[in-house]
Parts: sequence; C-alpha cells; structure tokens
Amino acid sequence: MTKVVRAAPPAPPKAWKRDVAVIGVGQTPFGELWDASFRALIREAGLEAIQDAGIAGEDIDAVYVGTMATGRFIGQENVASLVMDMAGLADLHIPATRVEAAGASGGLAIRQGALAVASGLADIVVVGGVEKMTDVADDEANRIVSMALDQEWESFFGATLATQHALVAKAHMHEFGTTRKQLAAVAVKNHANGAKNPKAQFRREMTLDQVLEAPPISTPLGMFDCAPLSDGAAAIVLAPLERAWSYTSKPIRISGTGQATDTLALHSRKSITSFPATKAAATMAYRMAGVGPGDMAFAEVNDDFTISELLAVEDLGFVDKGKSGEVTEYGTTGLAGDRPINTSGGLKARGHPLGATGVAQFYEVVAQLRGTAQGRQVKNARYGLAHNVGGTGSTAVVHVLEAVS
Amino acid sequence: MTKVVRAAPPAPPKAWKRDVAVIGVGQTPFGELWDASFRALIREAGLEAIQDAGIAGEDIDAVYVGTMATGRFIGQENVASLVMDMAGLADLHIPATRVEAAGASGGLAIRQGALAVASGLADIVVVGGVEKMTDVADDEANRIVSMALDQEWESFFGATLATQHALVAKAHMHEFGTTRKQLAAVAVKNHANGAKNPKAQFRREMTLDQVLEAPPISTPLGMFDCAPLSDGAAAIVLAPLERAWSYTSKPIRISGTGQATDTLALHSRKSITSFPATKAAATMAYRMAGVGPGDMAFAEVNDDFTISELLAVEDLGFVDKGKSGEVTEYGTTGLAGDRPINTSGGLKARGHPLGATGVAQFYEVVAQLRGTAQGRQVKNARYGLAHNVGGTGSTAVVHVLEAVS
Repeated sequence: MTKVVRAAPPAPPKAWKRDVAVIGVGQTPFGELWDASFRALIREAGLEAIQDAGIAGEDIDAVYVGTMATGRFIGQENVASLVMDMAGLADLHIPATRVEAAGASGGLAIRQGALAVASGLADIVVVGGVEKMTDVADDEANRIVSMALDQEWESFFGATLATQHALVAKAHMHEFGTTRKQLAAVAVKNHANGAKNPKAQFRREMTLDQVLEAPPISTPLGMFDCAPLSDGAAAIVLAPLERAWSYTSKPIRISGTGQATDTLALHSRKSITSFPATKAAATMAYRMAGVGPGDMAFAEVNDDFTISELLAVEDLGFVDKGKSGEVTEYGTTGLAGDRPINTSGGLKARGHPLGATGVAQFYEVVAQLRGTAQGRQVKNARYGLAHNVGGTGSTAVVHVLEAVS
Repeated sequence: MTKVVRAAPPAPPKAWKRDVAVIGVGQTPFGELWDASFRALIREAGLEAIQDAGIAGEDIDAVYVGTMATGRFIGQENVASLVMDMAGLADLHIPATRVEAAGASGGLAIRQGALAVASGLADIVVVGGVEKMTDVADDEANRIVSMALDQEWESFFGATLATQHALVAKAHMHEFGTTRKQLAAVAVKNHANGAKNPKAQFRREMTLDQVLEAPPISTPLGMFDCAPLSDGAAAIVLAPLERAWSYTSKPIRISGTGQATDTLALHSRKSITSFPATKAAATMAYRMAGVGPGDMAFAEVNDDFTISELLAVEDLGFVDKGKSGEVTEYGTTGLAGDRPINTSGGLKARGHPLGATGVAQFYEVVAQLRGTAQGRQVKNARYGLAHNVGGTGSTAVVHVLEAVS
C-alpha cells in the first residue's frame, strides 16, 4: 500500500452556485395512524406541499425521499419509484431518489434536494420524508430503530438508542450537574408546545411530576423522556431563489446547510457529553449563511430524548457548555422565552416518524418564518434553524432558514 | 382539494453549473466472500479509489454510499457514518450520505455525488457502492432482493425479480420472435468477458448448451440467465473537471447524467417489452452530453437477467426495437463486435452485489477510457456508457463518460 503524503490544500470557502428557497410545505398529522399506509401518508404530504407551492406534476424536475427502514417496517425497498407511482406521476419518469441516515433521513433528503437545485440540473424539487412504524410490534420497532447504532459493537449486544442516550445523560449529569428535573423540563416544555400544534401526535400538556413518575426506560430516562414510535409524512418544495417569487410571496431561503458524520459507536468518542457532528454541521451552516447562533430567533432541534435537546442547545452554540439544563428550567427555551426551541412540540410531542422528522422540522420553521404558526407564533423572526440527527450523534444535518420577503 | 391548473412552463435546457470528472477508481473482487465483512469490503474499495486519485482524507468534501438492503442483509441502517468510521475518517466529520434504489443504488449514488460537485458545495467527493448478500440463506436473500418489487401487489403474492423478468422475456419472445438461444447468447458473451476480468465473480467461459441446460428458475429463464448473489464493493473519486488534471493525467469526464423512474409494479405499464425509465434517463444523458447512442464505443448495461441486457440494448438506442437478440447472436455486442456490451462480464459474470454494481460499471468504463482494461480493451474509445437499473425497470440511471485527456 502506497502511503499518501500530501499537504491538504487550504480549504477554499465553499459556496453553492445558486441560492435555494422553500416555496411550499405539507405535513400529515403524526400519530399511530392505523388507517393510513406508508403510501397514503407520503402521497398526502406530497400533494399538500405541491398545492401549497401552486405547481403541477409537470413542473417537478426531481424528487427526494428520506426514510429509514422500509425494508424492515413494511418489507419494501426501492421506495422512491413507489412514491412517484403513488403520486400518480410515474408516467413523467421524474428522477426520484431515496436517502437514508436513520433519524436524519429527512434533513439529509432536503440537503440533497437543495444540492440538486444549486447544481443547476433541477429547478423545482419536491422533498418528502416518511415512516410507517406502527405496523410491527413495539419490541420489533425498537429493534429496527436501534439499527441506527453499530450492529457489531452496540445493537448486537442489546444496546438500544435509549440505553446509549441514557449513558450520555448520566455523563452530562455527572460532568455538569444537570438534574433529573432539568431533563424532564424538556418534555414538559415540548408537550406544552405540541398542545398548540394541530399536527402533533401528543396534543396534551404534561406536568413535571408526570414525567418524573413515568416508568423507567433506561435510567435516568423514563417513558416521557423518549420520543414515541410514530407514523407520518412531511414534504417541501424547493426552487431556485431567483424564481421563487413567481410561486409565493413569502419564499423562505435556505441560507446555510451543513452535514457531518461521527463514529457510529458511542464508545469510540473522546467525550459523550457533546455531539461533534452537530457542532461541525452547525459551523458549516452558520458560515455559509454568514450568521451565528445569536441570530437564530428559534430552532427545531432533534429531541429524540430529552438529553438530546440539551446537547443540541449547547452544540448549536445557543448556551455555554453545561448550561442547557439550567436555561430550560428557567424557561429561556420556552415559547415565551428568549430562544424558543421546538415550538412544534419537537420529536417528543409532534412525534418522530423517523424519515419524516427532518422535513417536519422544515414545515415548522417555514410556518414560523411565514408568520402562520397560529397559537405558537414566534415574533419578528428572520432566521430559524433546523437540526436533525441520526443514531447517537453519528449523523447531523443543520439548516439555517431565512425569511427574505 | 384544490385542482391545480397551470400551464407547464417551457422546459429550459438544464445544465449543471460546473463539469465533473472521475479522478480515481477502486473495486474489490466480487464473489461469495465469506471472509470479508460489509465493513471490510467498502473500506478496501474506498482506499483503492483514494490512492488511485492520490488524495488524502482531508481532501474529501463529501461521501456518498449506494447500498440496497443493509437493514435486512446485515441488520444495519445508518451506514454512511459506519463507512466513514471504517475508513478511519470519523474525526474529520465529513458529510456522508447513503442512497438507495435497489440495484440502481450505486449509479444513483454517483449521480448525487456528481450533483454535489456541480453545486459548488463540494470539490472532492468519494462515491462507494457495496452489498454483502451471502451472510443470509439463499432463499432469504432472494426474498430481500425482491423487496425491489411492489410489496403490496407483487412480492406479497410471491413474485420475485426472476418471475417478473420472465414475464418480460416471454412478452419479448412473443412480440419480436426473440429466441431462447438469443437470451442464452447474452450469458455466453458475458461469461467470455468475465473470464478476462480479474475482479469478476465468475472467471470461466460457458457454452450455449450449458446455459440452455441449466435448471429452470422461472421459464424461460434458467439459472445462468440470472445474475448471482454476490458480495463486493466499488468506489470512485469525483472532482470538478477544471481541477481534475492536478490529480490525474487522464481524467474521465461525466458528460451526461440521466435518471428516471417508472411504476414500481410491472402490471401498471402500458408495455413490458421496453423500460421507459431507461429511455428517459438515456435521453437526458445523451442530450446533456450532446451525443447520441451511435457515439458510444461500448457500454456497461444492467444485465441482472439476460432479457434485461436485450431490453437495455434497444432502450439505449443501440439497435432497432426487437433486434437485440439477433445482434447478440451475431456477435455485434461481443468484445470483437461493433458495439461491445458488458466488457467487464456484466452483472452476470462480474457479479451483482446490488449497491456496488453501478459503481463497478464506472470502474470498468473508466478502465476502458483510460486504456487500462488489459485483455478486454476496446480500441480508440472516446465515449462509454453506464446503465444501472433498480427493480423491474422502475428506476434507471444512465451516465455518459468521456475521455478528455
């Protein structure tokens, strides 16, 4: 094997060749939707987004679909052409691509769709995210979800996403004095927000005591520290920014996009109280948008577990390291706080149909930036952020969205 | 539901914002590789491609991985970060994306990688394709592969990729007088080519009688009309064309790329003796490259079944409809013929580790255009084509490659 010795060239500032905007969004209600199939869900979300953008099937140059584990959940791979089929667009032979990165599949699909627009090879791109998780038994669903972990070193030995995040929570409590109550405060806040979101899976508030007294899942995490198993789909329509105003009076610009990976197994990390992939993706997205965390009026972050939101709030630069529990308890990240987090209810209360989540985050951020998030509207927001994670911080996608109208 | 009435704007000629070239390739041997894991395979192919391009890990801006059914074959999703982990590059937090479209996963991953380069957001992109199919029982493997079909309307009722392609073969025989011997001639030719490819799974020639006398799989297709179950991986390195010469004296330009979908289920098609997705993808790729089928000196096409190569040769425009059997029998598509097809041995003899196939096709086309395909070299080739299909023609990806040095 030849050793490659080569000085890395100085990283040139990367910029895409043309700007990209969101011109339409759609989302199904999330929940245990026993009367809606995978096919029906993605069609419903897709049609809503297409109608919101006011485009016809013939206008679509490409489609991207984020979904994690259809082979396991519904015995189906090759789903991108299924999606086109169900949308009634098969005769148009539109390029359609499925993207997978566990819980980050949706955010990743958006990024690929945006790259397609930026490349010049596509103008109008529809991006969907979908998962149908409740057609298998609960224990089977948890086993499937845990395929986001390292099979040889984690899931084979019985580790699940919950056990790995419990380790992270314990370390964070040990290192920074984060309390059990502060973890629970994330769930209380997100349920309060979800109660205001008509598309959320759980539209009820919870008290701190309810969260604290819930059955344990993996200590210190209880039942209500974990996002649920969910069915659902969401979709958005992308266009070159310069053409966006011919479709909508309020295009939302994708000002920054970042994506990063880390080791799949948690034990390979130097520290487990931070997710470096989130930091790297956020740095890319902020730099591209020419902004910093202080410019974000609000954010949708990946609270698959309560501890995940605390890490996200720190790794995205919203608070100093170790202070996330404190600010959550204080209310800073609440709807009436200085930096609302997960106004939609987050993965915890809106629900977490894996592939749909990253796209549903866009649905919420766009609604906030358009000023249509009735009952949970953040005031005077110019920038909003979406943060989507797959595995135990092994893939992260961060987008900075901007109201440009 | 509002009816969307909107005249489609005249389709502008789509062009990407900057040209893309292949600067490195790698491939593992294909076969039943019981001593090589999924992880080991993709690492081996990736390192070979990286060394061939003369780049270091720090140079890589993004990674794409095409693989079909890891959730079923090895109990692992979220594989893009696993790949980075195995490559020893996790600390660099490089964006890595997994793409899936059954047997077209590899070609699709290349297209996404190329779009990332064209977008300006990435310069050096590594694209890998991989599948580890032989760690499950044969009948289970066939069941998994058939998840490329429509689960509700085809595979649920026992249809497999073989039964669907057998229907296509019967219709082609009925409509155009294609013979059993002409189908078999595809296998004989591809085994002859595979015998000359050191990385092929089957490096032995076969006689027409051997193919005709093989056990039936789904009439008229016998054992040797079907590509095998395989393990293997392949990888390529992409760069902006304008920077390609600083890495290699023989960059290979991606002059055209096309991708298209069709209905997932075969019964929804107007005709089953042609794959419109192949035609649509080829039209896109030819138009973008400013060439036609007559300019292709050779092609790697998706012969997952012998009938598939016949359809491909027609749908790519190399021969008139219905004449593919005849020209194959005559030798036109042989190594010494006017238009060599599958000089690598194709899926039939090189092997068909699903996600790896589309990338291995690039490995072969690049070798031919560089003039390094020892023992099976096509002379004076400027253009070569790669054609990758998922399902029964439900996804097709076509690339036109060009020697520019």
